[in-house]
Amino acid sequence: MTTMYGPDVTFLGIPRARLDDPTSLAGADAVIIGAPFDGGTSYRAGARFGPSAIRSADVDLLETARPHIALGVDPLNDLRVVDAGDVMMPSGQIIESLGRLEEAVSTIVAAGAIPVVLGGDHTIALPDISGVAKQHRAGRVAVIHFDAHTDTADFEFGSKINHATPMRRLIEAGTVRGDRFVQIGLRGYWPGPDVFDWMAEQGMRWYEMSEVGRRGIDVCLDEAFNIVRQDCDGIFLTVDIDVVDPSMAPGTGTPEPGGLTSRQVLDAVRRCALELPILGMDMVEVAPAYDMRGEVTAYLANRIVLETLSGIAKQRAQRTNA
Amino acid sequence: MTTMYGPDVTFLGIPRARLDDPTSLAGADAVIIGAPFDGGTSYRAGARFGPSAIRSADVDLLETARPHIALGVDPLNDLRVVDAGDVMMPSGQIIESLGRLEEAVSTIVAAGAIPVVLGGDHTIALPDISGVAKQHRAGRVAVIHFDAHTDTADFEFGSKINHATPMRRLIEAGTVRGDRFVQIGLRGYWPGPDVFDWMAEQGMRWYEMSEVGRRGIDVCLDEAFNIVRQDCDGIFLTVDIDVVDPSMAPGTGTPEPGGLTSRQVLDAVRRCALELPILGMDMVEVAPAYDMRGEVTAYLANRIVLETLSGIAKQRAQRTNA
Amino acid sequence: MTTMYGPDVTFLGIPRARLDDPTSLAGADAVIIGAPFDGGTSYRAGARFGPSAIRSADVDLLETARPHIALGVDPLNDLRVVDAGDVMMPSGQIIESLGRLEEAVSTIVAAGAIPVVLGGDHTIALPDISGVAKQHRAGRVAVIHFDAHTDTADFEFGSKINHATPMRRLIEAGTVRGDRFVQIGLRGYWPGPDVFDWMAEQGMRWYEMSEVGRRGIDVCLDEAFNIVRQDCDGIFLTVDIDVVDPSMAPGTGTPEPGGLTSRQVLDAVRRCALELPILGMDMVEVAPAYDMRGEVTAYLANRIVLETLSGIAKQRAQRTNA
Amino acid sequence: MTTMYGPDVTFLGIPRARLDDPTSLAGADAVIIGAPFDGGTSYRAGARFGPSAIRSADVDLLETARPHIALGVDPLNDLRVVDAGDVMMPSGQIIESLGRLEEAVSTIVAAGAIPVVLGGDHTIALPDISGVAKQHRAGRVAVIHFDAHTDTADFEFGSKINHATPMRRLIEAGTVRGDRFVQIGLRGYWPGPDVFDWMAEQGMRWYEMSEVGRRGIDVCLDEAFNIVRQDCDGIFLTVDIDVVDPSMAPGTGTPEPGGLTSRQVLDAVRRCALELPILGMDMVEVAPAYDMRGEVTAYLANRIVLETLSGIAKQRAQRTNA
Amino acid sequence: MTTMYGPDVTFLGIPRARLDDPTSLAGADAVIIGAPFDGGTSYRAGARFGPSAIRSADVDLLETARPHIALGVDPLNDLRVVDAGDVMMPSGQIIESLGRLEEAVSTIVAAGAIPVVLGGDHTIALPDISGVAKQHRAGRVAVIHFDAHTDTADFEFGSKINHATPMRRLIEAGTVRGDRFVQIGLRGYWPGPDVFDWMAEQGMRWYEMSEVGRRGIDVCLDEAFNIVRQDCDGIFLTVDIDVVDPSMAPGTGTPEPGGLTSRQVLDAVRRCALELPILGMDMVEVAPAYDMRGEVTAYLANRIVLETLSGIAKQRAQRTNA
Amino acid sequence: MTTMYGPDVTFLGIPRARLDDPTSLAGADAVIIGAPFDGGTSYRAGARFGPSAIRSADVDLLETARPHIALGVDPLNDLRVVDAGDVMMPSGQIIESLGRLEEAVSTIVAAGAIPVVLGGDHTIALPDISGVAKQHRAGRVAVIHFDAHTDTADFEFGSKINHATPMRRLIEAGTVRGDRFVQIGLRGYWPGPDVFDWMAEQGMRWYEMSEVGRRGIDVCLDEAFNIVRQDCDGIFLTVDIDVVDPSMAPGTGTPEPGGLTSRQVLDAVRRCALELPILGMDMVEVAPAYDMRGEVTAYLANRIVLETLSGIAKQRAQRTNA
Repeated sequence: MTTMYGPDVTFLGIPRARLDDPTSLAGADAVIIGAPFDGGTSYRAGARFGPSAIRSADVDLLETARPHIALGVDPLNDLRVVDAGDVMMPSGQIIESLGRLEEAVSTIVAAGAIPVVLGGDHTIALPDISGVAKQHRAGRVAVIHFDAHTDTADFEFGSKINHATPMRRLIEAGTVRGDRFVQIGLRGYWPGPDVFDWMAEQGMRWYEMSEVGRRGIDVCLDEAFNIVRQDCDGIFLTVDIDVVDPSMAPGTGTPEPGGLTSRQVLDAVRRCALELPILGMDMVEVAPAYDMRGEVTAYLANRIVLETLSGIAKQRAQRTNA
Repeated sequence: MTTMYGPDVTFLGIPRARLDDPTSLAGADAVIIGAPFDGGTSYRAGARFGPSAIRSADVDLLETARPHIALGVDPLNDLRVVDAGDVMMPSGQIIESLGRLEEAVSTIVAAGAIPVVLGGDHTIALPDISGVAKQHRAGRVAVIHFDAHTDTADFEFGSKINHATPMRRLIEAGTVRGDRFVQIGLRGYWPGPDVFDWMAEQGMRWYEMSEVGRRGIDVCLDEAFNIVRQDCDGIFLTVDIDVVDPSMAPGTGTPEPGGLTSRQVLDAVRRCALELPILGMDMVEVAPAYDMRGEVTAYLANRIVLETLSGIAKQRAQRTNA
Repeated sequence: MTTMYGPDVTFLGIPRARLDDPTSLAGADAVIIGAPFDGGTSYRAGARFGPSAIRSADVDLLETARPHIALGVDPLNDLRVVDAGDVMMPSGQIIESLGRLEEAVSTIVAAGAIPVVLGGDHTIALPDISGVAKQHRAGRVAVIHFDAHTDTADFEFGSKINHATPMRRLIEAGTVRGDRFVQIGLRGYWPGPDVFDWMAEQGMRWYEMSEVGRRGIDVCLDEAFNIVRQDCDGIFLTVDIDVVDPSMAPGTGTPEPGGLTSRQVLDAVRRCALELPILGMDMVEVAPAYDMRGEVTAYLANRIVLETLSGIAKQRAQRTNA
Repeated sequence: MTTMYGPDVTFLGIPRARLDDPTSLAGADAVIIGAPFDGGTSYRAGARFGPSAIRSADVDLLETARPHIALGVDPLNDLRVVDAGDVMMPSGQIIESLGRLEEAVSTIVAAGAIPVVLGGDHTIALPDISGVAKQHRAGRVAVIHFDAHTDTADFEFGSKINHATPMRRLIEAGTVRGDRFVQIGLRGYWPGPDVFDWMAEQGMRWYEMSEVGRRGIDVCLDEAFNIVRQDCDGIFLTVDIDVVDPSMAPGTGTPEPGGLTSRQVLDAVRRCALELPILGMDMVEVAPAYDMRGEVTAYLANRIVLETLSGIAKQRAQRTNA
Repeated sequence: MTTMYGPDVTFLGIPRARLDDPTSLAGADAVIIGAPFDGGTSYRAGARFGPSAIRSADVDLLETARPHIALGVDPLNDLRVVDAGDVMMPSGQIIESLGRLEEAVSTIVAAGAIPVVLGGDHTIALPDISGVAKQHRAGRVAVIHFDAHTDTADFEFGSKINHATPMRRLIEAGTVRGDRFVQIGLRGYWPGPDVFDWMAEQGMRWYEMSEVGRRGIDVCLDEAFNIVRQDCDGIFLTVDIDVVDPSMAPGTGTPEPGGLTSRQVLDAVRRCALELPILGMDMVEVAPAYDMRGEVTAYLANRIVLETLSGIAKQRAQRTNA
Repeated sequence: MTTMYGPDVTFLGIPRARLDDPTSLAGADAVIIGAPFDGGTSYRAGARFGPSAIRSADVDLLETARPHIALGVDPLNDLRVVDAGDVMMPSGQIIESLGRLEEAVSTIVAAGAIPVVLGGDHTIALPDISGVAKQHRAGRVAVIHFDAHTDTADFEFGSKINHATPMRRLIEAGTVRGDRFVQIGLRGYWPGPDVFDWMAEQGMRWYEMSEVGRRGIDVCLDEAFNIVRQDCDGIFLTVDIDVVDPSMAPGTGTPEPGGLTSRQVLDAVRRCALELPILGMDMVEVAPAYDMRGEVTAYLANRIVLETLSGIAKQRAQRTNA
């Protein structure tokens, strides 16, 4: 079996690949892998079933064509996208699990493809981004981070490695420059001022929901894109599903009311994929046990991945045509 | 019993009618019928319980007065609205079932009333609109179609008659002119470019959600109204509940994230009913088994029907006063 | 035990107080009490578990610091907020129950603190507002009322005291002036024109959702604030969770589609708390049995309370700094 | 409307009757009424929707024939059973509500029919049994009581009238003799020894689940039947759905693990109806908001009523044939 | 894709086969196919997702070994079991769908393997049993039928072919002898005496739950086995999940309280498989939309299939050893 | 806060204790601690919320008296039982977490009290039993283990320490003798014959459900008690909620159909507590996210704990009286 949990299927039925078989990756534009790990969660676990839920969210799309109506591209055909199954990540063994994931991501990047990682809790952003960055010079990978939370705590729940801390670890390690790290959708009551002080010192820029509401998300994105485009080889896009309002994406671990709508997040990741050079992506914190019976969170996460791939496909098509 | 499934009740307690008893239809402005058929669904069945769920969604309204606060009309009293129960439509017998529904709709139109059909899956739009159109000269009925999907495939799931094809059948048969058929709320990954090519050839106009978002729904509606108003006797309004974002209407069969809000759809149907000559309506694809415990999808569908009737009542009141 | 239902805990772990122990109230800026009463509901009961659900909605916040990111205050520390548990309110004994609550509210006001009452059905607004108002000259307390319904019926379900009537009772008794009573978020099909006529006679101002949509909520709030600020000692803020769209707050008794978004309601109560002199607040009609598995309604209600307290904290901080 | 909540339908579509219209009761063997009251609940409310849920639990039975396979009778045809709708019982007004119910039950008994009351919480046993007993000499009505709880507290939740006390009130008033009152299915941790002492003093007999398990339910029923048959005119059968294990009947207010199976309760009430002279019945504490999506609790309650009526029909048929 | 709905996987990960590829069936002891059809349902549809739910019910068993603890066999290894995917059965096209299924079953039998059909609604028993029987002389296949319902109606819901009639059609056609057709687990209120009269005329034997309860299921099975063993080539085992009490298997369309326990059904099918010559099996009426969140109905159906295969494996092992 | 997740309350409101404060443990007969760890789960996580759910399962019991009706004792008063909150056990850090738990259990035993540990996944049995055993001579603590699974694998999911292996680790370490280790309720398809061979070599005795069904659970318990009573200081009782049929306890991680009923498990633990010298207990694998809305699994687990404590109280009372 190539998946750790759930039926042994690929994302919407695309071809399988194996990370230990270079020929299966040859020519791939993007490689999807699952990171079914939730050992870093502080509260509701269950994101280990995220990859399975996102892959199978819509069997109506288990066809050979899935054309994006608005963009006029077929993301899983215009791009060559394969699914390499899950990385084996037992949730009780955090260090080994994250290590395996980083190696998997690096293998994909080395093969010339864009890694698309289906989480899993947000701890996985650490190996996801590290795995991409190590194929570039230090600080040359910028990050666009959609989330309700900053994930920049220093120490939480008695440890330095969990889903509250990955962004700090990345910046501390010099993997990513703080002033090329933009967060969109923050809100609520965590973390405290000391953490925001640290973030400001690193030159991070964040868009709290009040600002997004007041200025409009497109203005914020314009500004964010200007920041991350400078002196960088490309962008890692990390999307925590809890950036969306919990009523529209209830299947997640740490809900915070007042988020983006599902329409807004789809439009936003589309713009990222159309306008920025995407080097990698992860889609995290989908916890199906808290989802609605109609699985709306899994559908939304499935569509965020498809929307991103569609944008990439469109961008490439435009470049080719130009 | 006059209903096929569920308790034997009328929409919010309005008077009963019987299609085989002309006197019970006499003087009716609108007649509600249920079309509890889901034999045309490709994926999640369950819309057969839509009529029952929509009729009973809100027992707090089982009173004699239900005044619309914003419009200042009482739709079920200012109009004479009766409920003729369900058409018998076993889901395994698609041809007989659709035939009975078309006949029922024609009977209502012939009696001078507006048919309001509670589905059922969207296959029923074929008999709904045919049943209305046959009382008019060919091509004189225009259509406003709210949906996430075009429903214009040629052949799907091994058949020509199912919930993916009714709009194509209507246009092919000359029942409705393609250039008087407007779709609002499309999104996602279905159907393919060949289908959109066919639609363009027919002169259809569709508003994908990106356009709705960019231009605003009211601008799109203004434009749509201009199209359908020309050379037509009136409008059939067909509303698939999946035009609404699945988080706001999870109780449906083929959810597609990124839809209209419930507020937007209420305002949009109100404008249709206020500004256009409505000849008939259907409200389809409500599948209660996937709804939230609080039955929000059924409530929303109930309110879309009421909103439309309120708009019609208001339009008539204004005409009378003018 | 200090709570009537549910585990014996305080709102997010803040200190306990006892209404019969004046020293425990000394110095409190705000006192939270639960009013677990749903004997006034016409339809779905269950709001008796509202206080418990709101208190415990987010154990991730059971920490000593909960800084509001956007406002830069820590509402439960910058203000001294204590939780006095529940008032004992058996739902079958409406008169005694409401009497006990009014007394509790008065005790809090007399101690110089702002009462924050977690309902409970909306019947409790009667004792909540009366309990505050009796500490002021007649008519000197204005009301901002977020709700889908007017709650101004004269007689409903065979009685004069229930969740459909409290606002009428308050105005009839002269407790609050009709022309200092503003309602925001109304929609749907209740009550009838006679009730709206009565409301107009009292000089009440209401913002139906169509107006909110057309003019924008901030314009409506500007206008509303101008009304309630005149000739008054302060404002009572009463929030019925059903002002929010039922898809975003399904856990309530009388859902009405087409409401505010959760983002809108958070921003609106923040503005109230920042710009108006708040004398008291209640948060009513949260019925957990109809909530989603992820408890999104309880989270939202929890955040509405926190948002209000944050706004109050910010307003005081600004005043102090000025 | 004849029902207080929910669609305006009769139990499985049987004919309607009106208590204020004696001709509609003429010749009835049994009359079903709803008692949608839950103002006596100590914990989870929601039994107000019990009558609606029980009436509509199985639309497949909305036919003219419903033959009981094992007994060979058709309960709703072999007996003349009508449904008189709901008694108006606002949950906040306990005294008026119970008074109206007692009067309704008496009216039915006076008309020569067996009242079958669909609750509502168990408080209603007080008027149910009083209403039957007042048509007989004092102490001539015996009671068989299936329940997890004794409902014989003296004072609970600050009042003497609620769902913890009705059986005590009945015995204190002399309405029923303690030594003709048998309880089956008790278990758990309530009430205390003082209450059991009082019960023993009254000569009550109870079968705790340990005894039922050890001796077998049929042996217990044999013994119970011998007790209640002596010196009595007949039996009132009161069934609290929580006598069944909560996993098999989760839709109830005060679950206690370790109860009867659904098979056992059906067989037990069948024996009661076959072997005892039934004067009345109530079926209480069904709270649909806590039921499974498949509505298994409502189905079970529906079948307990049908099983009882089938047993009565069979007993009469046997008497007639003998 | 080889499945019609749901992820494209095999039963617990066993090897795939293709019915149009004889080599893939060569040597198979049993072949699993899905029959995702619910166009024959009278009430709750949704059994179309049964095959998908049963196949994937327990990913913990997606391993190479699944030893049955009690029997000491490994059913999916000691037998060669393959999965041939789903037959394409659009629910709106009943005749074509059933025809394709009958042909598929025949193909499997002709290849020398036991067909194990995952339904779908019980209409499929008609092609399932016909497909097996046509490979034998008329009347040489006996049937053991576990169900709450007889499924022997003549005409129901306006048609002769649906899930209420298949057993009658089989006997009328002479496919199966009435006196070699045994039903276990019947209960409730359907069908009427005329149907039971017809069944008695055919010599059918049925065990209503009262008899099962009184005599014990093992005594009933002993008797049933004696009946079906006479003059027959083997047995078709047809299991409707609603034979189990709805509280233990809520995910089904037509629940009837008072059924077998899950323990009883597992033991009963084990005995069938151990003591009778099984020629084929179907497992029908699993409707996941009504299941519990923990998917207990799908797990149970998965285990009924495994239990049967384990019994067959054990019987063969014993024969081999003898 | 003394709990790791959920509201900061004690089991049914009993007094708090602190493990680092010996005076708070003085005189305690039993000490409840939570072990909110699920880092050892192979499949559905979520048992981290078990302690919270079990503590708060029934607020109706949040009173000062909870008399056990059948046994005539009040377990939480006749015994002095305190609740020491949760051990801090982040699920991603398995070694540290288990170490802290073992120390906590030892502290309780050293204080002369019986530890009652609320899990958490079954990995915690390793520190639970080790913590008790280290206060006794090697091999002097016997184990009664209720479970669907043996939990005696050698290596699973890439590690030696997880919820599939604790019983093997205990026996390998010599902490418990294999021939004093009895398992009741096994069933299903895991583990394989090699593991059962190992178990047999250790002299373990297990009662698979077929044997329990055939011989009766009381006969099995008699036999089991004879085994564990020999040469031992006392018994550790470890109860995995999945020993119960998943339909009766759906809120768990690895459901296996065909288990004990809730009535059987209550009676069985009662006998253990009445007839054996209990040294400690754990109650594991309750995962609330998969529970029914009515929380029946949490109620059942709550009652298993209470039933055990009641049995212990009764045994002590009998000894005292003798």
